[in-house]
Amino acid sequence: MNYKMMGRFVAQILTIGAVFMLPALMISLYYREDRAVYGFLLTLGIFAVVIGLLQLTCRSAPSAFYAREGLVCVGVSWIVLSLLSCLPFYFSREIPKFIDAFFEIVSGFTTTGASILPEVESLSWGILYWRSFSHWLGGMGVLVFLLAFAPGNGKGQGFTMHLLRAESPGPNVGKLVPKIRKTAVILYILYLILTIANIIFLVIGKMPLLEAVCTAFGTAGTGGFGVKNDSLAGYSPYIQNVTTVFMALFGVNFSCYYLLMLGNFKSVFKDEELRLYVGIMLGSILLITLNLRGFYPTIGETIRHAAFQVSSIMTTTGFATTDFGQWPAFSQSLLLLLMVIGACAGSTGGGLKCARVLLLFKILRRNIHQVLHHRRVQSIRINDQVMDEKVLDGANAYLSAYIIILLLSFVVISLDGFSIGTNFSAVLACFNNIGPGLEAVGPTCNYAAYSVISKLVLILDMLAGRLEIFPILVLFSRSTWKQH
Amino acid sequence: MNYKMMGRFVAQILTIGAVFMLPALMISLYYREDRAVYGFLLTLGIFAVVIGLLQLTCRSAPSAFYAREGLVCVGVSWIVLSLLSCLPFYFSREIPKFIDAFFEIVSGFTTTGASILPEVESLSWGILYWRSFSHWLGGMGVLVFLLAFAPGNGKGQGFTMHLLRAESPGPNVGKLVPKIRKTAVILYILYLILTIANIIFLVIGKMPLLEAVCTAFGTAGTGGFGVKNDSLAGYSPYIQNVTTVFMALFGVNFSCYYLLMLGNFKSVFKDEELRLYVGIMLGSILLITLNLRGFYPTIGETIRHAAFQVSSIMTTTGFATTDFGQWPAFSQSLLLLLMVIGACAGSTGGGLKCARVLLLFKILRRNIHQVLHHRRVQSIRINDQVMDEKVLDGANAYLSAYIIILLLSFVVISLDGFSIGTNFSAVLACFNNIGPGLEAVGPTCNYAAYSVISKLVLILDMLAGRLEIFPILVLFSRSTWKQH
Repeated sequence: MNYKMMGRFVAQILTIGAVFMLPALMISLYYREDRAVYGFLLTLGIFAVVIGLLQLTCRSAPSAFYAREGLVCVGVSWIVLSLLSCLPFYFSREIPKFIDAFFEIVSGFTTTGASILPEVESLSWGILYWRSFSHWLGGMGVLVFLLAFAPGNGKGQGFTMHLLRAESPGPNVGKLVPKIRKTAVILYILYLILTIANIIFLVIGKMPLLEAVCTAFGTAGTGGFGVKNDSLAGYSPYIQNVTTVFMALFGVNFSCYYLLMLGNFKSVFKDEELRLYVGIMLGSILLITLNLRGFYPTIGETIRHAAFQVSSIMTTTGFATTDFGQWPAFSQSLLLLLMVIGACAGSTGGGLKCARVLLLFKILRRNIHQVLHHRRVQSIRINDQVMDEKVLDGANAYLSAYIIILLLSFVVISLDGFSIGTNFSAVLACFNNIGPGLEAVGPTCNYAAYSVISKLVLILDMLAGRLEIFPILVLFSRSTWKQH
Repeated sequence: MNYKMMGRFVAQILTIGAVFMLPALMISLYYREDRAVYGFLLTLGIFAVVIGLLQLTCRSAPSAFYAREGLVCVGVSWIVLSLLSCLPFYFSREIPKFIDAFFEIVSGFTTTGASILPEVESLSWGILYWRSFSHWLGGMGVLVFLLAFAPGNGKGQGFTMHLLRAESPGPNVGKLVPKIRKTAVILYILYLILTIANIIFLVIGKMPLLEAVCTAFGTAGTGGFGVKNDSLAGYSPYIQNVTTVFMALFGVNFSCYYLLMLGNFKSVFKDEELRLYVGIMLGSILLITLNLRGFYPTIGETIRHAAFQVSSIMTTTGFATTDFGQWPAFSQSLLLLLMVIGACAGSTGGGLKCARVLLLFKILRRNIHQVLHHRRVQSIRINDQVMDEKVLDGANAYLSAYIIILLLSFVVISLDGFSIGTNFSAVLACFNNIGPGLEAVGPTCNYAAYSVISKLVLILDMLAGRLEIFPILVLFSRSTWKQH
């Protein structure tokens, strides 16, 4: 294991974290939030010390760096960055327990949006901004940011590809353009443009600028942290509808936007994953609208709430305009199903991803053909491209790991004695990076009541969900740490 | 599709069903249960007519018969046999609704043990016997019985192997001896010996003979239908412990018993699946005993209940000695996990099967190695035998199909409006052929309240669980019914 190079890498990641903390500090200074200012300053000091120590000890790193190191690097970076970034919450005493602060920031970076806070309106603006910003940075990925904008990462394509793969969601991460660095830059530019468009639409709806920025961060990262206690329930229908649309947009594979930019509309229109994503979304809105007949005064309001919640859950954002814990069982169960399916690969959303669901269906269909006709039938294609058998193996292994982690987490957190529905939806909501679950962790509740052990389990679930399991799983694998 | 040969096959299966109905008729005659006698006689008449019609119309069948026909044959046989075998319940008016009678007999043949009856002690003995006997026949498989004992099934090894594979549980069904017919005979003889041993042990514990026979049928098939309203709660600790042991024994791969008969103790002792099965069982008993501290007056009673419930759930039997719906959340969640894992392949139990869980873990481990070291590592071995990649593909596809069916069933039955815990455990309990679930379908409740549509979904789940998905899934596949 090339520890020195990993150390240098972590130092670079931390530098990005520290730089992005400065706007939060400014906001706190502007609003004269003394405790938050103190929290940010103390944290920045600790960042500086840790970065300095890492730079000193990891000076002469050998350049050998393999897939293993890439995976471990991603896992370790995310954990260390979270450990330090949660300190402003803790030092400012706005979140008094360290484990809760850690839970909150991991929930932020992983774009989960699960909170331990009973209410958020008493938080200072600096802290609220930082909490929401963690969604934005985590959504597209902090390592992808590093690849795009840090100077002098001339470590060769193979290495950077490992990082991009490990941090970007989906079974088959492609490069948009031959150069990885350029791919990362394009991704972030698209991300920024969409975020700014979102802010503009919100401000047009008379949302104050800082609220609009925070809400757009939560939408862009498909995170779900808001600045109001009732999430988006108190805003105007216009703002709710804008958010419905933007959540859905941020759940789309970003390569589609790149193709649109190039004028290649046909490829986008024919994209199988996109069709599945849109189809499931519209179908679910229809079914829930039917199931909710008579629940709201008008049909228009029913559709608005159904569309918002479907868009929010399927993209794994987790904003809410209504307490869907009160909805009939069918609508709730359908939402649970959408939690599992998730958004598109290569978007900022979580879940299994539509592309992977599509792959698993095609693998299953091939297997049925094989059983029926006793011969191996044709290879599996998505968008007319033959899928490498390694990608198929990966999708299968992913499903196994997904189920195993889900079940084990469910059993461990059940030690706290909450209901089965609560525990099951809590694990699903954290692992798929959604945020609110059902029953005692529903949209009007929070995760504070869980024990420290359960919170640690849920933290690992959030990380495993965001990083697609393997970068976290390898940290627990003996073969990772073996010398050879 | 060779419909004529399928028709002849179904006729043979129905003949077995009719012959085995005779003892039930005798019992009803002996106890002078008039309505039940009427029900059995009318049903036997219908059996005779259907068998006669099938024999007439399917006389000159072509002999071409492929894997596809084998699978469809298994699925269709089970459905037709169930449709006719449920008639005594309905004609005797002991179960007034046809859908409920159908649910009950499918639950019997699939060894699920889920019931729509609020209480069973008012049923006639003939009906109780028939209900329990369906577990025994379904446990080892009615087609396996046909292979073993019907005269003149000279259809070649390939064909009979398809049937054996389709009806026997597990990812990799092996032949015990080169001849399939002899394998089927050995399986049934071992099954009969163990069942008789179970009856003897129960009678020693002063259980009346007919009760002992019915209870042993429920144990042997890992089914769970009993003859008392409180399942096994009212019996002596001796009888409960005997049942604990026999449930566990019937959850073991029967090839282990064959190896024991041959004196090959070493292979049995080293069998990886058996070790996993025993390990999980003992570990779960320990954890639940610890979790239940103070729940029962003595530690002995705690262990007895823990062991009984673990054995009952893991082997997917579904007997109960206590209302585990009252247990703490951790114990309940652990039981849900055991439902999913299930018993050994090649036993009468359901669930994913330990062998398949083992395979999925090994596939996952191989995949992690691949990701870490970027090369395909060695093949996967179980008991020092290299597994064919087709078997691995099959295990993966099985898991996908399992999850898809589980989630879709869950969403559809949620239309009835029960709680998430109820619906989720109902689907798990039916699909894994366990019987009782949790909350509103817990051990003291029943499935009567579900709508007709939900019952049909659960019936399909039970059949898909018992027949390992594919024989039922192919019935819904277009490519099955295509002519070519």
